[in-house]
Amino acid sequence: MIIVLKQNPSQEKVEQLSAALRDLGLTLHFSQGVSTSLIGLVGDTSRINIDMIEANEIVESVKRVSEPYKAANRKFHPQDTVVNVNGCKIGEGFLSVIAGPCSVESEEQIIEVAKAVKASGAKFLRGGAFKPRTSPYAFQGLHGEGIKLLLKAKKEVHMPIVTELMSLNHLDLFSDVDVIQVGARNMQNFEMLKELGHSNKPILLKRGLANTIEEFLMSAEYIMAGGNENVILCERGIRTFEPSTRNTLDLSAVPMLKHLSHLPVVIDPSHATGIPWMVKPLSKAAISAGADALMIEVHNNPACALCDGAQSLTPEAFDDVMNAVKAQAKFENKII
Amino acid sequence: MIIVLKQNPSQEKVEQLSAALRDLGLTLHFSQGVSTSLIGLVGDTSRINIDMIEANEIVESVKRVSEPYKAANRKFHPQDTVVNVNGCKIGEGFLSVIAGPCSVESEEQIIEVAKAVKASGAKFLRGGAFKPRTSPYAFQGLHGEGIKLLLKAKKEVHMPIVTELMSLNHLDLFSDVDVIQVGARNMQNFEMLKELGHSNKPILLKRGLANTIEEFLMSAEYIMAGGNENVILCERGIRTFEPSTRNTLDLSAVPMLKHLSHLPVVIDPSHATGIPWMVKPLSKAAISAGADALMIEVHNNPACALCDGAQSLTPEAFDDVMNAVKAQAKFENKII
Amino acid sequence: MIIVLKQNPSQEKVEQLSAALRDLGLTLHFSQGVSTSLIGLVGDTSRINIDMIEANEIVESVKRVSEPYKAANRKFHPQDTVVNVNGCKIGEGFLSVIAGPCSVESEEQIIEVAKAVKASGAKFLRGGAFKPRTSPYAFQGLHGEGIKLLLKAKKEVHMPIVTELMSLNHLDLFSDVDVIQVGARNMQNFEMLKELGHSNKPILLKRGLANTIEEFLMSAEYIMAGGNENVILCERGIRTFEPSTRNTLDLSAVPMLKHLSHLPVVIDPSHATGIPWMVKPLSKAAISAGADALMIEVHNNPACALCDGAQSLTPEAFDDVMNAVKAQAKFENKII
Amino acid sequence: MIIVLKQNPSQEKVEQLSAALRDLGLTLHFSQGVSTSLIGLVGDTSRINIDMIEANEIVESVKRVSEPYKAANRKFHPQDTVVNVNGCKIGEGFLSVIAGPCSVESEEQIIEVAKAVKASGAKFLRGGAFKPRTSPYAFQGLHGEGIKLLLKAKKEVHMPIVTELMSLNHLDLFSDVDVIQVGARNMQNFEMLKELGHSNKPILLKRGLANTIEEFLMSAEYIMAGGNENVILCERGIRTFEPSTRNTLDLSAVPMLKHLSHLPVVIDPSHATGIPWMVKPLSKAAISAGADALMIEVHNNPACALCDGAQSLTPEAFDDVMNAVKAQAKFENKII
Repeated sequence: MIIVLKQNPSQEKVEQLSAALRDLGLTLHFSQGVSTSLIGLVGDTSRINIDMIEANEIVESVKRVSEPYKAANRKFHPQDTVVNVNGCKIGEGFLSVIAGPCSVESEEQIIEVAKAVKASGAKFLRGGAFKPRTSPYAFQGLHGEGIKLLLKAKKEVHMPIVTELMSLNHLDLFSDVDVIQVGARNMQNFEMLKELGHSNKPILLKRGLANTIEEFLMSAEYIMAGGNENVILCERGIRTFEPSTRNTLDLSAVPMLKHLSHLPVVIDPSHATGIPWMVKPLSKAAISAGADALMIEVHNNPACALCDGAQSLTPEAFDDVMNAVKAQAKFENKII
Repeated sequence: MIIVLKQNPSQEKVEQLSAALRDLGLTLHFSQGVSTSLIGLVGDTSRINIDMIEANEIVESVKRVSEPYKAANRKFHPQDTVVNVNGCKIGEGFLSVIAGPCSVESEEQIIEVAKAVKASGAKFLRGGAFKPRTSPYAFQGLHGEGIKLLLKAKKEVHMPIVTELMSLNHLDLFSDVDVIQVGARNMQNFEMLKELGHSNKPILLKRGLANTIEEFLMSAEYIMAGGNENVILCERGIRTFEPSTRNTLDLSAVPMLKHLSHLPVVIDPSHATGIPWMVKPLSKAAISAGADALMIEVHNNPACALCDGAQSLTPEAFDDVMNAVKAQAKFENKII
Repeated sequence: MIIVLKQNPSQEKVEQLSAALRDLGLTLHFSQGVSTSLIGLVGDTSRINIDMIEANEIVESVKRVSEPYKAANRKFHPQDTVVNVNGCKIGEGFLSVIAGPCSVESEEQIIEVAKAVKASGAKFLRGGAFKPRTSPYAFQGLHGEGIKLLLKAKKEVHMPIVTELMSLNHLDLFSDVDVIQVGARNMQNFEMLKELGHSNKPILLKRGLANTIEEFLMSAEYIMAGGNENVILCERGIRTFEPSTRNTLDLSAVPMLKHLSHLPVVIDPSHATGIPWMVKPLSKAAISAGADALMIEVHNNPACALCDGAQSLTPEAFDDVMNAVKAQAKFENKII
Repeated sequence: MIIVLKQNPSQEKVEQLSAALRDLGLTLHFSQGVSTSLIGLVGDTSRINIDMIEANEIVESVKRVSEPYKAANRKFHPQDTVVNVNGCKIGEGFLSVIAGPCSVESEEQIIEVAKAVKASGAKFLRGGAFKPRTSPYAFQGLHGEGIKLLLKAKKEVHMPIVTELMSLNHLDLFSDVDVIQVGARNMQNFEMLKELGHSNKPILLKRGLANTIEEFLMSAEYIMAGGNENVILCERGIRTFEPSTRNTLDLSAVPMLKHLSHLPVVIDPSHATGIPWMVKPLSKAAISAGADALMIEVHNNPACALCDGAQSLTPEAFDDVMNAVKAQAKFENKII
């Protein structure tokens, strides 16, 4: 960390600040210039309160040099993390597909979709029981009943299930869920992240619509700091000025996340674009960019879906996407 | 709502869709063109699932014409809402200032700041007991102890207190809090919004970093749909590409929110910019743009603040800002 | 196009507006609802001035249903355009690589790089003679001398050259240039686009940093409206809130552009990210997403480059990227 | 400027780099840490090529500490610049209003509008002769004829005129124009900026839609580096994710620009919002934030305007805005 001092600071104040910093166990290096003076801090700066330093009257600005996350940082954990869910793996060397409807709507629906996506090669079943909807008047999911239907489908098709948690109050209902999803809108629901850090279940953490990659990794760090190292990162589109797709899929986040962190990375082209015909080219591109898994919405009757129907693939269209995905995975020497 | 059909849809499918829409109680108007056909929907479209219509195979796109919110909509509630908190009012005709430290740190600190901001003319005391921090290693607030200290300060200075709720699990601790704040990161924590809809306390709802004005009003609608109409909207900066301020304060949101909705609007220049010397010009500008209240961070010793010290004003600097604010409010014929 | 009228418009004003619209050769369809009335416009609306209609006192808003571009629109030109530059093709079925240094610096440099990129499989040589630099104190390119050196290199290696035009005043110098590049900052330099519409040279048009896909296609339309149909679209990263890459590469623009338009699409991963090691995964992803060509910066000595050295690949690193690119192109059945 | 070195750089390479930096006249300060080593550079770093340093194989990253602009920098020019146009002043102490139609359309129109805005208190007449339009099919302005009509209006009402230059090819036509406007789309048309640096006319430079404040000041620097110090900065809305206004007016840019630079700052609420009724509250807010001038679109018949009619005020509405503006300016002790 580098502290840039204001012009001509009082020597006394510089010494006060220096003493406070040394008290934090840091070593200081001074660099005195004609118009600018710097203090370089050496040591563990990840727990330093930048705000407090910036508020000091002799400080112009503070610049971080090293990343503020540790558990999620590849520098301290060079090997790729592979998350193992009942034998289904997400991480380096594998290409896993998570598929299913946006919302669980009925026993028939979820089982029909589950069988279809399994037949096409998906490894995980997704489905929402609690649905984050912009409008209070929109369908909000079947809640506990939805979880039960997911578990029935799991029993029927023997696939691990992934479903979203929207409130810690519902956590008890998730005891048989295999992977807990934290949605984009809750990426910085820190109380939820802390609690999930004490869980032993894999967490699929979605990037917030307007969160930087560093903030994304800091949210992973919240979970990991609690002891749960099974975090799966999911890029699902960021908010930009471009209106032709629902969000803008940031595929450059794949190599960047894998460079900065050892955690596996999933791409969700369905939510990112909101457009079914874009799922295939962007799934292929995601694999080429290095993604470890894909998350794709499939509905047996998109035009009657109670939520996000417009972005769902039919089972037939999903099968076509999966053929392309399998060929691409094979080309990349990934196990699918 | 307008449905744009794809070219040459089958007449049978058009009739199926039309029947389904009429079943929802809507009247349909057809407009057949050479290359495009439209269906205009008349009736209460606020509960319609756009996704379901967009997923229909004969539909090209769907365009909303009227707003999807009702309770928050000025069209159905032309008169300004004035939120009354123990006689302190926020809304048309008043200019209220909410001030205090980012975090409650100690009894001495909160009482000293409370006295100072009251002396300068603030009407509400703010202070965080639960703090949303990007890093799990940063100070997270004093939690229940912080609430207790706020209540002590309230007793001492007789000002209503405003503090942030981060989890429904903590709601019991907020029974004596006057105004519950929902932070920007929880603006779309829908389970929290629903629960607060059943509360009888005023809710200060902060706009999410990357949320549109429509989404902001939809989150207010979540609270109001539950029966709680005491919602105060707070613009606190949005995320853009500009790095010189922490966020970009969207002052055009003030007249736009007041045009679309009857709810009062607060501006938080401290969080929006992160820069103490920008609080004064932007507070003045907010009042001129029509804001009903300001939310300003004040700390008795910014350089030792455990959180966001860099953006806090000293009591002296706050007093100077308040002199400008009072003159501006008087110029605008607002009671302060 | 759909005109949404304000509530209860005067019948007389509606008739005045209707008459004016019919005078433009349009057919009108009325849809009268309880709270909203619409007018659907049928006919060629691409030349309609939306602003003029929106300014009408009885109009609430105007919504486009069809695209405002024609020459660039795939609906009116279903077949892919393949741009042929002296036998080197860019478009469907081909995967072309344009490579070279950011700036031309010397005869030795440009010829050495040209030979290297040709040996690795690039089909086009790029190099800047006129450089758009944020700072007036930065190296601005060799200007006319740079063009001369590019032409020398062209003679030496027999590759078509691509170079950026920054002012119409320099156009005479470009008579032997094969492809004229319009940079991102000039994407809406409409006077330049109009002039290039009268040229017979292929134009490589870069998307502006904050321009939508529709605006991008409208800029292509400017060139095509003048008669020059040899337009190549280049996505080079858009400006978002994410700081870890220089810009955010919008790979979803590839399938979207190819869906909306028949023009070929190039991806420039070097400028999009500014990070050499990201060029390989994103080049692969671009090909999988359907890109027709890649534009990659290569410098024989990046650490001494006078411009954008940090993002350039060495010839050795480029050769490694090209091996991956060739395999990927073969997998996609593209001729490289 | 601070150079962060990669871990364990070879001592030889560090010395090579150090020698190169000292050759540029810089003094170096080393700060060797456990995991990170830094080099602090002291001296004139504004002409340093950051890219070249970043491309060095032992360099991790480079961080600027001081601003890259000099002529526009308040640090080297503490006094406010006041631009004097035939006695009409823009700058500290004055509040000037520039008003007129988006496009010049006819002699009657421009003279009628000119008389009206003068009567209401505007000091400068604006009007476009060359119009940047997204669509090639939209009205492009009257070109040379438009300039002539502006000059007729100038003669009639004795107000300095402001009009946009879209190509250096048209520069001869601007010899009697008082203030040359560089539009947002040309903010980084560096060849144009360089040429205008040799002009002796005041330049009204509009901020690009997605340009940072630093880039904006660097474009001003381009003009000033050529010797023309009469630059007026104009904020006219930036591109964000918010769709309810055409752009998002960045009013925090006013105090920030005036903090960083000595140049006067103009706000254009008409283009920023595209909504006539927002001009009044945002004009008031702009003045409170410290703006030196306003630029407002006025048309005698907005519904028939050939361009941007929807955002224009009628002369009556403008007069109402001016009453508010005059009161606000008086309150701020500005001469209007």
